[in-house]
Amino acid sequence: MGKPYVVGIDIGGQSTKLGVVDARGNIMVQTSFDTKDIVELRVYMDELVKTLNKLIGDPSVGGKEKVKGIGIGAPNGNYYKGTIECAPNLKWAKDEYGKPSVVYLKTMVEGAMGLPAVVTNDANAAAQGEMIYGAAKGMKNFIEITLGTGVGSGIIIDGKVVYGHDGFAGELGHTTSVRRTGRHCNCGKIGCLETYASAIGVARTAREMLEFNPQRTSLLRDIPADDITSKDVAEAAAKGDALAIDVFSFTGRLLGEAFADFVAFSAPEAIILFGGLAQAGELIFNPTVEAMEANLLQIWKGKVKIIHSELPGSEAAILGSAALAWEL
Amino acid sequence: MGKPYVVGIDIGGQSTKLGVVDARGNIMVQTSFDTKDIVELRVYMDELVKTLNKLIGDPSVGGKEKVKGIGIGAPNGNYYKGTIECAPNLKWAKDEYGKPSVVYLKTMVEGAMGLPAVVTNDANAAAQGEMIYGAAKGMKNFIEITLGTGVGSGIIIDGKVVYGHDGFAGELGHTTSVRRTGRHCNCGKIGCLETYASAIGVARTAREMLEFNPQRTSLLRDIPADDITSKDVAEAAAKGDALAIDVFSFTGRLLGEAFADFVAFSAPEAIILFGGLAQAGELIFNPTVEAMEANLLQIWKGKVKIIHSELPGSEAAILGSAALAWEL
Repeated sequence: MGKPYVVGIDIGGQSTKLGVVDARGNIMVQTSFDTKDIVELRVYMDELVKTLNKLIGDPSVGGKEKVKGIGIGAPNGNYYKGTIECAPNLKWAKDEYGKPSVVYLKTMVEGAMGLPAVVTNDANAAAQGEMIYGAAKGMKNFIEITLGTGVGSGIIIDGKVVYGHDGFAGELGHTTSVRRTGRHCNCGKIGCLETYASAIGVARTAREMLEFNPQRTSLLRDIPADDITSKDVAEAAAKGDALAIDVFSFTGRLLGEAFADFVAFSAPEAIILFGGLAQAGELIFNPTVEAMEANLLQIWKGKVKIIHSELPGSEAAILGSAALAWEL
Repeated sequence: MGKPYVVGIDIGGQSTKLGVVDARGNIMVQTSFDTKDIVELRVYMDELVKTLNKLIGDPSVGGKEKVKGIGIGAPNGNYYKGTIECAPNLKWAKDEYGKPSVVYLKTMVEGAMGLPAVVTNDANAAAQGEMIYGAAKGMKNFIEITLGTGVGSGIIIDGKVVYGHDGFAGELGHTTSVRRTGRHCNCGKIGCLETYASAIGVARTAREMLEFNPQRTSLLRDIPADDITSKDVAEAAAKGDALAIDVFSFTGRLLGEAFADFVAFSAPEAIILFGGLAQAGELIFNPTVEAMEANLLQIWKGKVKIIHSELPGSEAAILGSAALAWEL
């Protein structure tokens, strides 16, 4: 009989979440620990291993021999090398000079735990999770777009995550939406999709629309411009605020235009939206679908589904990372 | 012992080329027949089967039992269905009302020949050929871009052609290079890469540059504007004509910008340029590389090769189609 459980680890800037998951996506036990104050790799690894041992030893799991492997989703995680590569948001992932460096996470976890491990980035983990536990069950070709603080993506072709030549494939948030005149992106480029279709992008679009249209009234004018968040925009739009609705129309248009190009690449069955901004529902889905359809080749019109993730928000990250471990 | 040969068939608007190829890419025997005057599917199939039988019966091949299978590259060829789907340039691929229709080519060829067959589009066939016989030998992740009358593409991930959910993946010529203000494409969209980076696109760019810059001298002014071809532009540029060189700089810039987005998708080891326009060499390669590098994420800068196809021009189409048949 196969081993019934896998471990999913989601490494973020603020905390690390861990859970033990069965083949149906039931989380047997989960926990998390704070990483804000950890600045040394050794300290982080000690905490991770201690927490993992406690989790796997839980009576609901029954120890290491019940566990098939450990899946880890992390910023800048590299599948081929099993590393975290220069992730500026992880304070403990630095070298002795304080510069972001390469962490050989897979090797370290396997050595400490005696279990096989796999590392990838959080967006790829979400896509794998969607395929095994979520809205993409049974799909072999789809793209998962994470609309969070940034825009992440995981591409599935023939039932497998696309890693490419170097393990870093699927950076669709950094394809160009607006050439030359677009917004500056943190990555150094101009006009990346992420600068428009992320939570930060939506808030910025709202601020710009308010400023460029001084005659337009909006509920958003009650909030100091610098404090406006994408959640504020969604709430105002839900109340019928025309300017806030326009913000989503603009965002959806750029997103849909980008999706049409993604379809021309891999002809997916569906594009699945995950993350905070996807919660805005029709406000973002409708203009996205409209713009995508207007930009698709005839052969794809009306054929590519845009759907909402079915990974449960709070547990999605653990499920995604866990899903990776079934392939070990 | 395995069967030593495969057949490659390249179906074009003007002619059909056929060859028998060994595992090293040696063409044992080849031929072609004119299709300009064929307007009926029955007539086309009769001619195709007659020619195939003659080819396979050639003493250098030795009959059907030496042939593993038949690979067919055709406009709008669909790998999953084994069909040609509504190809406007094939006069014989019409229904009784003269409208382009679906041709079940794989089934018909297999039935007539008693050999397994596979169908895909010409750009995918070129990519497969490049991997087995050309510049991509040993590569598992690359993109083949065909710069011909249009812009075609074949995407290889993990050593396999990407067909996507419906068999039509890899239409990178119809990703958008210039939004809203771009050129109208035959496909009905605005600003497709193909309207700029194809032979037709280059000729148009030359005509527009001549018109928009009446004060600039150019060798191209000796040619009636409507007669200018991309070959004329390449010849003028090779002679140092500044305007013609600018045409290639502009074309390469759009091509390189598009390539940066393709890299963000599948992180290929190389992008391989095939087709007439690629013959322009440094004229097109240099601005393409420069623009791609300027638009790549840091992790890919200096790492993605832009290289020239090593499929021999005149036999490339046969080799590409033949390469498909090794997987049968």
